[in-house]
Amino acid sequence: MTWLDDIRWDRDGLLPVIAQEAATGDVLMFAWMNREALARTAELGEAVYWSRSRGRLWHKGEESGHIQKVRDMRLDCDNDVLLLKVEQLGHEPSIACHTGRHSCFYQRYESGAWHAVELVLKDPEHIYR
Amino acid sequence: MTWLDDIRWDRDGLLPVIAQEAATGDVLMFAWMNREALARTAELGEAVYWSRSRGRLWHKGEESGHIQKVRDMRLDCDNDVLLLKVEQLGHEPSIACHTGRHSCFYQRYESGAWHAVELVLKDPEHIYR
Repeated sequence: MTWLDDIRWDRDGLLPVIAQEAATGDVLMFAWMNREALARTAELGEAVYWSRSRGRLWHKGEESGHIQKVRDMRLDCDNDVLLLKVEQLGHEPSIACHTGRHSCFYQRYESGAWHAVELVLKDPEHIYR
Repeated sequence: MTWLDDIRWDRDGLLPVIAQEAATGDVLMFAWMNREALARTAELGEAVYWSRSRGRLWHKGEESGHIQKVRDMRLDCDNDVLLLKVEQLGHEPSIACHTGRHSCFYQRYESGAWHAVELVLKDPEHIYR
């Protein structure tokens, strides 16, 4: 599979991945893939990451139902970062973050501090069963 | 500076950074910051990265003129990834990539291969003097 060999995996065999909502352009989250995760993602058409904390493949949405349908995959100029354009399923409005927010990037810098500026759309206790 | 201490720097003292064009939502590039780079970015209001290849601070646009004015800084839920919303200066239409393209993410996956799908807006030989 040449396209997988084109990737410059880091010293841990991982690739940084940015997930962007295709329809809105919102950056939803950031995660990592290893070779197997990327192969599975292409095969399934749904985002499969490598969970560094759990040390295993993580089919996004497997517990929460918040599946990411992949609409476009873009590799950067150095072949070492991936951009996924996705349709974020499972909730309306869409939730990508484990805190129950739309996007993981909800802490805004202002006057020397980080402030949470996005609403929790669903209680995490009701996301994970 | 508490807000810098809130960051979970990786084992190399770095933080992954996504640069997104504020006006269009386009993801322009991905880079890294160390503590000093982030402090300088906040101070200047312009993106200053840590160049891993050159081993020094890299004020984006210092050679190309393609400065990134920072409009918003967002930290993710794990405090270990930064999203910069920027105004990409120096060329119209805007160029963030060293290849002379608008975005670094110009290689699209299709039928088992990566295909360059964005135009070169300016010859890199004329970007770097």
